[in-house]
Formats: sequence, C-alpha cells, structure tokens
Amino acid sequence: MKRLTIITIAIATCLNINAASKGIKYIPGDSLTMINKAQPGGPFYKRIDVDKYPTLTPTVNRYYSFPTGLALVFRTDSRNINAKWKTTSDYHAVNGPALMQSGLDLYIKKDGRWVWAGCGKPKFNKKKHSSPVIHNMADSVKECMLYLPLFERLDSLEIGVDADAMIEPIANPFNKRVVAIGSSITHGSGTSRPGMAYPARMERATGIEFINLGASGQCKLDDFFAQIAADTNADAFIFDTFSNPSGQQIDERLESFVKTVRKAHPKTPLIFIQTLDRPTTTFNSKVREFEQGKQEAARRGLKKVMAKDKNVYFIDPGMPIGDDYEGTVDGVHPTDLGHERIIAVILPQIKEILRQHKVIK
Amino acid sequence: MKRLTIITIAIATCLNINAASKGIKYIPGDSLTMINKAQPGGPFYKRIDVDKYPTLTPTVNRYYSFPTGLALVFRTDSRNINAKWKTTSDYHAVNGPALMQSGLDLYIKKDGRWVWAGCGKPKFNKKKHSSPVIHNMADSVKECMLYLPLFERLDSLEIGVDADAMIEPIANPFNKRVVAIGSSITHGSGTSRPGMAYPARMERATGIEFINLGASGQCKLDDFFAQIAADTNADAFIFDTFSNPSGQQIDERLESFVKTVRKAHPKTPLIFIQTLDRPTTTFNSKVREFEQGKQEAARRGLKKVMAKDKNVYFIDPGMPIGDDYEGTVDGVHPTDLGHERIIAVILPQIKEILRQHKVIK
Repeated sequence: MKRLTIITIAIATCLNINAASKGIKYIPGDSLTMINKAQPGGPFYKRIDVDKYPTLTPTVNRYYSFPTGLALVFRTDSRNINAKWKTTSDYHAVNGPALMQSGLDLYIKKDGRWVWAGCGKPKFNKKKHSSPVIHNMADSVKECMLYLPLFERLDSLEIGVDADAMIEPIANPFNKRVVAIGSSITHGSGTSRPGMAYPARMERATGIEFINLGASGQCKLDDFFAQIAADTNADAFIFDTFSNPSGQQIDERLESFVKTVRKAHPKTPLIFIQTLDRPTTTFNSKVREFEQGKQEAARRGLKKVMAKDKNVYFIDPGMPIGDDYEGTVDGVHPTDLGHERIIAVILPQIKEILRQHKVIK
Repeated sequence: MKRLTIITIAIATCLNINAASKGIKYIPGDSLTMINKAQPGGPFYKRIDVDKYPTLTPTVNRYYSFPTGLALVFRTDSRNINAKWKTTSDYHAVNGPALMQSGLDLYIKKDGRWVWAGCGKPKFNKKKHSSPVIHNMADSVKECMLYLPLFERLDSLEIGVDADAMIEPIANPFNKRVVAIGSSITHGSGTSRPGMAYPARMERATGIEFINLGASGQCKLDDFFAQIAADTNADAFIFDTFSNPSGQQIDERLESFVKTVRKAHPKTPLIFIQTLDRPTTTFNSKVREFEQGKQEAARRGLKKVMAKDKNVYFIDPGMPIGDDYEGTVDGVHPTDLGHERIIAVILPQIKEILRQHKVIK
C-alpha cells in the first residue's frame, strides 16, 4: 500500500513536470477568425483597406491602418495562452496607457457571457512584445476573443498555447452589425485597454457585432467618411461626428454627408450622437463658446435632415459623462468611467431604435 | 460718429493685443501651500521625509519620494495658468497614462465644490515638461488645488500666471485628516490622472484631508509602515494592507503591525479594507488560490485583533469593483471606474465610522 502511494506520487510528480516543461507552440494569428471588420477582404490586421480610399488624409490613412476594434476569435483547450506581436510604437499619447495603445485584451465565454480573462502587456516604447495573457486555466475547451491594439499598427501576431493543446478558428459569435464612425471617443482614446471602448462594450452587452471606425481628432464629416459608410454593410450606423468639426463645418457638411450615405443605404437607421459636454469648457470661455457652437450646429442641422427622413435619429444629450466632471482623462477623452456613463444612457436608446427596425427583438 | 467708431475699434484692438502679449510670469511652486502631507517638514515635493526611515526598502524609499497625493493650493485672479516642471521619467508602467505618472491635475472651487479645471500634460518619456493647464478664464479670484504626479519624483515646479495677475498661498482648505497606507490601489496605479485615486476623490467628496501613502506592490505589513503610521497624526487610518502580502505574511505580521500603531494611537479608528476580488482570478486557478488564501488570512487575523480592540474596523468586501469584471486595467489595478465603484461602497461605511468617533458630524 505504502509502495503504491509512493509510485502514485512519483507518477503524479512526473506528469506535473511534464505539464510544466511541455512548452508553448506559437501559431500565426491570421490562421484564426478576424471579427469586427467593416468590409470583407483587405490586409488582415487593418480595419480598413486604406488603399481603396486614396482621398483619406495621411492621419486617417494611418489610423485606419490600425486594428482598432478588431478581435480574433478561436477555441482552445490550452491551459495557458501567450502572445508575441509587433507594433510600430510610434504613438506616444500621454492620455492613455500603453496597454490600450499597443496591448492585447482577452475575453473568454463563461456561462454565456464574455468575461475578461487577461491581457498581453506590451513593452514600454518598444516594437516587439511578448507576454503571457492567461495561465493555469482548466483544460476544458474555451471560446476566446482577443481584442487587438487601439492605437498602433499591428505588423504581426502569434498566439502561444500548450504544445499538446488544440487551437482552431470559430465562427463569428455575433449576429447583425452596427458600424460606429466617429472621433477619439469612438476610437477609445481615454480607455484603459482594447476591450473598453464603447463599441466593444456594446458588442459584448448585446451580442451584436459593433464595428469601430473611430479616428481620433479626424472625424469632421469629410466626404471619405460618408463614402466608407456607403461602402459598408450595416444594420445601423452610429455617427459620433460632432466631436471633431467646427460648428461651421457641421453647417456646411452635414446634409451632403447624409445624402452620400443615404444613396447606398436608403432606409438603414442612421443614429447621430451629440458630442459630450466637455469638462474643458467649465472655466475656459473660448472653448465653451466653440463647443456650444458645435452642439447648436448639430441640433440645427439634424432638425433639417430629420424633417425629411424618419430613419435618422439624434441622441441628444449623447454623451452625458456625469455632473461631477470626472468622466474624462483630460477634459476631452472619456475614460472607462466616462464610457460606462455614456453607455448607460445611449445603449437603451440604440436598442429601442434597433427594435423598431427589427434588427433585434 | 464714424470717426468715433474707428477710434473705439482701434483702442479695443490695442487692448486686445496688450492682453495677448502681456505674457506669463512664473513663480516657484514652493512659495505656495502644500497639503496632504503625512508629517510636517521634510523635502517639499516628497510625501515622506524618507531619510527619517533608514529601514525602508529601496523601492519604498523611491515611491515615498514621489509627491503622490500631494497638492498645492493657492488663490489667483489670472485668466491663464501654465506650468513648467521636471520629473525623473524613470517610471515606465504600461497600465497607466503618462498624465497619471508625471502630469499635473488642477481643480478650482466653484459653488462650494472642487471642480476639475485642467491638466498639465507631461511630455512622453521626457524629464522636462511645460504645458498650459487652463486658459481663458474669468479674471475673478479663484481658489485652486493642483495635484502633483503619482509615479515620478518631482524635481522642480513653476506655476505660470498672467504677468499682471495676483497669485498667493491659501490655508489648507480641508479639516481633520485620514491617512491611507496601502498598495498600488491606494497609490492610484490604474487611474487616469493625479486627482483620481480614491484618497483624492474622498478628500474632495468629504472636505476631510486624505493622505496618500500607497506604495505600489510594496505594502506587506512591514514594520516600517507601522512605524510611519505611529509617527503620523491622524483622525483615522485606512489600511489597504491585504493587497500585497501573502496569506502567510498576513498571519505572521498583522498583530505586531496593529500593536506598533496602537502604541502611538491608543484609540484612533484603524479601518482595514479587504482587498479586491481580482479579475485575474476568474480563470487562473493558481492566482485564485493565492488570493483566496490572502482574503481568508485577513479575515482570520482581524477577527483576533477586533476581539480585543473595538476601534479596529474591517470593511469586507472592501473593494467590490462590480460583477462585470471590467473595473480594472489589467485584472489587478482599478481604473477610474473601479475606484468609483470602490468609493460607492466604502465611503459611506468610512463616514459612519468617522461619525461614531466624532471626527465628522
């Protein structure tokens, strides 16, 4: 009996050593399923095939080459997940963590919900990254969703799993699709990690695929944004298009913007979101005047558009980030806290619109 | 009449040019009032006079040399506030923005509340910074509170105001004092800017001075932390002391820690906060086991301590960051969202304890 115990312990120890030493195998990210892409095709890790749009400004070209909002979905029975990836490391914002700019963010399905599991931490101000994402899991089969960096181009990605584990692509787990075109707020500038911008959070909350086409500081109702919307299939569009332009630009461009989108999508709900009451306006009278001018232009412009088109919606106030002035990192960019407050107000309204249009029940 | 109009316009233009060109004068930060310091004296921009404590580990020595939680208070009628400052630029965390690590965060009193006004944005990965903080304000006299960097040593600071403006120190606007000794959570690791760690937010919410003695990853109930508490005047202590040590360290050290503090402060309320249910535990069984061990050790230890001392309190759960697992940047460090959720639960309990001890009404 005693000998049997010793043998059992010896075998268990061996197995344990084997488990620890069996190593990690890396498979290329592009062997898995990419979701949250606006349009089919194009370079795997770019959210837009920017070569299709020669009129993009250099900055929008660069930002739309990021994998912002994109996620890889796969299934694995691995107990451990690691990652190796390369980014450009040329985005040096001071209002967001490197984890948001160039990190990875993993969610795993648990009891029907997407639950945060771990993140791939980038190296500070470097181009090559290697990080554990999550270790010591059960060896059951898990459905995984890995969000990619919000503010860096992704040049390569490899996913590491236990050498003897299975890893394979799965079908897109989301139904229907809402495309969000917008500013830094949609882009996720003030959030803490890639899964926390409002489109990603609304996706997990609703089961609808939300596409992130936020372009920090750039979304001024330019023709090319309207053209991209026209070329993109969607059950609804969200337009965070009043954060970046001046009041005058809104006056000049809104009607033509809607016209271009409408030509391609005659009845799709177009949901415009009023921009936030920026905490930078509290004491700065010039900024306040500029921001009020924008908000009034948006109201004026949408009143005209909506008089002719019953499938255009305006959520106003669109981004109420709380009356404590604490929802942003820098007075402009909502943090995770700001996005939480925004979602609490706009998601019920967006769902109601989607229900009216029979996108959801 | 026409000539008068032209003259009026000419004068107005001149005044305007004068206003724009009159320039900014810089005054040294140490001519203003520093608040939120644990102990009187010591180097102006260090939260602890670390030379007084030779047994500090090198890391705690370094972290306690930061101006974490400190703020300058002053009064000015300037329309514009700028800042120039120097930091060490050696803290390269990936889970927080540079703004939190080495930036400045300004609040102004408005209708009796401290309201966020602007921030001094540091340069990415540099030691010398220069930034507007807030411009275009009314020229009335404003009470200002400028929080200093959370994660860098501050080597110098100058405040810039309009050349013809008044700027002067004011008395500490807060009454009574609560000293928070703790981990990265108290330190503010996952927050977005210097004013967002829970001690700073509780200070603004209550009017009580809250001292930040969080030391990221370091607060393991070591003797020197107890000695610092013993040497520090307080109306109450908050101890976030179960985030960093192992269960075994809690078992071994808690009673002696309390004993050292009690020798100096026989009846001061000691409020221990249970550490958070970390989202890293959801799928990682080893981390889960370790964290549960800590939580149980804290419960076990405090049960013993509280049986003998009715002025020791245990808030458990102490850091409920929500059942959506979204309150942290990396599974460990609460973001502004996480701190908001923690404060919502613990602040009412802390206030109730302070009321019982007649610290507040």
